[in-house]
Amino acid sequence: MTTLLGYRSLVQEAAALRTGADDPVAAVHRSCDRIDAVDPRVRAFVPEAGRRTRLLEAARAAAGAREAAGRPALYGVPVGIKDIVHADGLPTRAGSALPPEVLGGRQATVVDRLCAAGALIAGKTVTAEFAVTAPGPTRNPHHLAHTPGGSSSGSAAAVAAGMVPLAIGTQTVGSMIRPAAYCGVVGFKPTYGRIPVAGVIPNAASFDTLGWYATDVAGIALAASVLVDGWRTQRPAGPSLRPVLGVPVGPYLERAGDEALGAFTAQRESLRAAGYTVHEVPVMDDFEQTVAQLFTMNRYEVARAHADWFARFGDVYRPETTAAIQQGHTIADTDYAAARQRRKAFRARLATDRAAAGIDLWIAPSATGPAPADLTTTGTSIMCLPWSNAGLPAISLPAGHAANGLPLGLQLIGDFGADEELLTAAARIEDVLNATSTASPRTPGATA
Amino acid sequence: MTTLLGYRSLVQEAAALRTGADDPVAAVHRSCDRIDAVDPRVRAFVPEAGRRTRLLEAARAAAGAREAAGRPALYGVPVGIKDIVHADGLPTRAGSALPPEVLGGRQATVVDRLCAAGALIAGKTVTAEFAVTAPGPTRNPHHLAHTPGGSSSGSAAAVAAGMVPLAIGTQTVGSMIRPAAYCGVVGFKPTYGRIPVAGVIPNAASFDTLGWYATDVAGIALAASVLVDGWRTQRPAGPSLRPVLGVPVGPYLERAGDEALGAFTAQRESLRAAGYTVHEVPVMDDFEQTVAQLFTMNRYEVARAHADWFARFGDVYRPETTAAIQQGHTIADTDYAAARQRRKAFRARLATDRAAAGIDLWIAPSATGPAPADLTTTGTSIMCLPWSNAGLPAISLPAGHAANGLPLGLQLIGDFGADEELLTAAARIEDVLNATSTASPRTPGATA
Repeated sequence: MTTLLGYRSLVQEAAALRTGADDPVAAVHRSCDRIDAVDPRVRAFVPEAGRRTRLLEAARAAAGAREAAGRPALYGVPVGIKDIVHADGLPTRAGSALPPEVLGGRQATVVDRLCAAGALIAGKTVTAEFAVTAPGPTRNPHHLAHTPGGSSSGSAAAVAAGMVPLAIGTQTVGSMIRPAAYCGVVGFKPTYGRIPVAGVIPNAASFDTLGWYATDVAGIALAASVLVDGWRTQRPAGPSLRPVLGVPVGPYLERAGDEALGAFTAQRESLRAAGYTVHEVPVMDDFEQTVAQLFTMNRYEVARAHADWFARFGDVYRPETTAAIQQGHTIADTDYAAARQRRKAFRARLATDRAAAGIDLWIAPSATGPAPADLTTTGTSIMCLPWSNAGLPAISLPAGHAANGLPLGLQLIGDFGADEELLTAAARIEDVLNATSTASPRTPGATA
Repeated sequence: MTTLLGYRSLVQEAAALRTGADDPVAAVHRSCDRIDAVDPRVRAFVPEAGRRTRLLEAARAAAGAREAAGRPALYGVPVGIKDIVHADGLPTRAGSALPPEVLGGRQATVVDRLCAAGALIAGKTVTAEFAVTAPGPTRNPHHLAHTPGGSSSGSAAAVAAGMVPLAIGTQTVGSMIRPAAYCGVVGFKPTYGRIPVAGVIPNAASFDTLGWYATDVAGIALAASVLVDGWRTQRPAGPSLRPVLGVPVGPYLERAGDEALGAFTAQRESLRAAGYTVHEVPVMDDFEQTVAQLFTMNRYEVARAHADWFARFGDVYRPETTAAIQQGHTIADTDYAAARQRRKAFRARLATDRAAAGIDLWIAPSATGPAPADLTTTGTSIMCLPWSNAGLPAISLPAGHAANGLPLGLQLIGDFGADEELLTAAARIEDVLNATSTASPRTPGATA
């Protein structure tokens, strides 16, 4: 079981490639060897017959074109791309049975940026159908009987299994953060709107956000400097203060299971001991209404995004997606408009509560518990719902383990647009979680 | 015993004063009450009959002059000043029996900067005579039978006892870092030359550096933004990488005692678990020669600094200082010049070793062990010697306890001029040390 886990540091690998200590051809073989060895069991990548040949060609072209001094940030780094994101030369299938020629489109801006930064597209990663909920074949590399989460299932599993040091996913409700927790990797979802979603098949456009997985916060930050518009790259000068952490007590937090809450309590104590101020802040007393508001918007938008395709190919959609689309068609325009208004009020109130409590970051369990032992579900996104509803940036850090040995996650939620500050804080908090966790198979250096 | 310890966060206190949640008059009473209550036993401050009256007058003048919006960074913060640093209105005695009118001089630049930043000078703190080795009356607030270290004895003890949230000291060899460790506070010595020493009685001018104590790294950094020339105050944008830590193995490290080394080993393991790379780097195989080189320069310079005063008042110098000055007079100019050359070579070699090993920071025990149970000594500065010799910035963090309950320190040594990066790293490492230490009386919130 543990032989399926791998640990590849994006920062170390990218540095070795830039300096010439490593080369893109070797990096390609490393990824392809690993995919060959473990992906028949994990099934993170969409199968591709000529993967190694295609990647070696790209690696050689890259190597020929660049002197060491001019190598960009992700030179030669193999990256997995969630299969709702268009990448030239690779069909988009979106976990769907629709004809690929229908789904195709212009290469996504995020892939343009990866390629401009020298990355090599290692392949497409498995997604729940259209990034909704119908699971693909991916299994959790910590235990093959468990879901990796979704919808960015393959991207999270590919990083957890050491197939690639970086993989791109998306989040509409909980599709980045939950798989990160289930697979024991770091997953980051920037502020809504900070990365263009051009070239990404929409799910619910008012929520859709690109994100990515790496094994640590430093890797997440390196990728951010390449992927995020106007990322503030200036170097830190002197320390920032520890953020004040807010625990969002009330009906939202009560949705977490006992095991997640137990670990969360231990993490809060570790952070307090490390010097952090942790405040309990009662929020979202009308959480059920927020859930309803989000699903009203979400289903309405899913139905509109799929209207044309569903009209033509509705019979090949999977039942979960069909149900979501059909629900969406029952929602009146006026109800949708009212839900948008309620979301606006929700955002404003959350911002007010945060400011009144003097909170810099919210912290919460990333998921209700460890990955369920069920491959017919991707688990529940409920712990991510309010933050996605507010468009806030979020990151999930590996944080302890359940009794069955599967990883748990702690999510940190930053202020709107304050992605850089969120990652600065996350890097510090990661140290504390690492130092105070019991020995984990994801400890740096412990590779499969 | 523990009732002598206090914990005042400079950052919190300064923020409360700037926003008006606290006011300078209250801050003055807080410091004066605390001094009245504990300083008869600790003896950190040079006695001053009219302290409260003087400070209240200054506080009222400050309060009248400023609207909240225009309040500077240290508005109303009481600060202790080592008594070799000239401050207008307070005699400089330097722990010496020389007539104060002989010692006086123009207010130090560092005091000008504190006053410009709105700080209130709480008084002069006890120093070893002329910042050499003859101890003043200060006792360690963790245990009154133990030395607080020196020569910045009073400044370290004043912060440890909660009399002030910030105190200024100096370091020639180990006069900031060692008292920080002995007293369980954070002590910072910037790169040699980054703060003008104008208005400070010289000890050995090739080494003399101002520094300061606070209860945490955030407080150290706030003061740095006020005190250091050209401090780079831009806010962090995204995380920096964890520094690579170097353990300077060899005859230098072997000078630490078993208890300090045992704690150091545990700290290295905690940092490794947190994700830090820790390399053992063999260095300074000729450490004894470096010690000799430093003392040749140091004694030569002490003798010159005191030549005039010693000629006039040699009979009132204390034996330790007299011995240092007399030693200095036996050193030939050519030997001094040769020692300067050896120091140059030492610095170059240390820089080469650091670069070759890919080290960002050196880490080492701050002192050979906990504070000795001896008030006739200030302990040994040997663990600070090479770093002071190289002019490097250093910071000591509280890091565990000896079997007798007294605090131990971990020092981090940065690159020349890279004070900001040192503090950034120190803030992160502080979290790990806090989270992995056994419960400490210095945990934030645990005040006397």
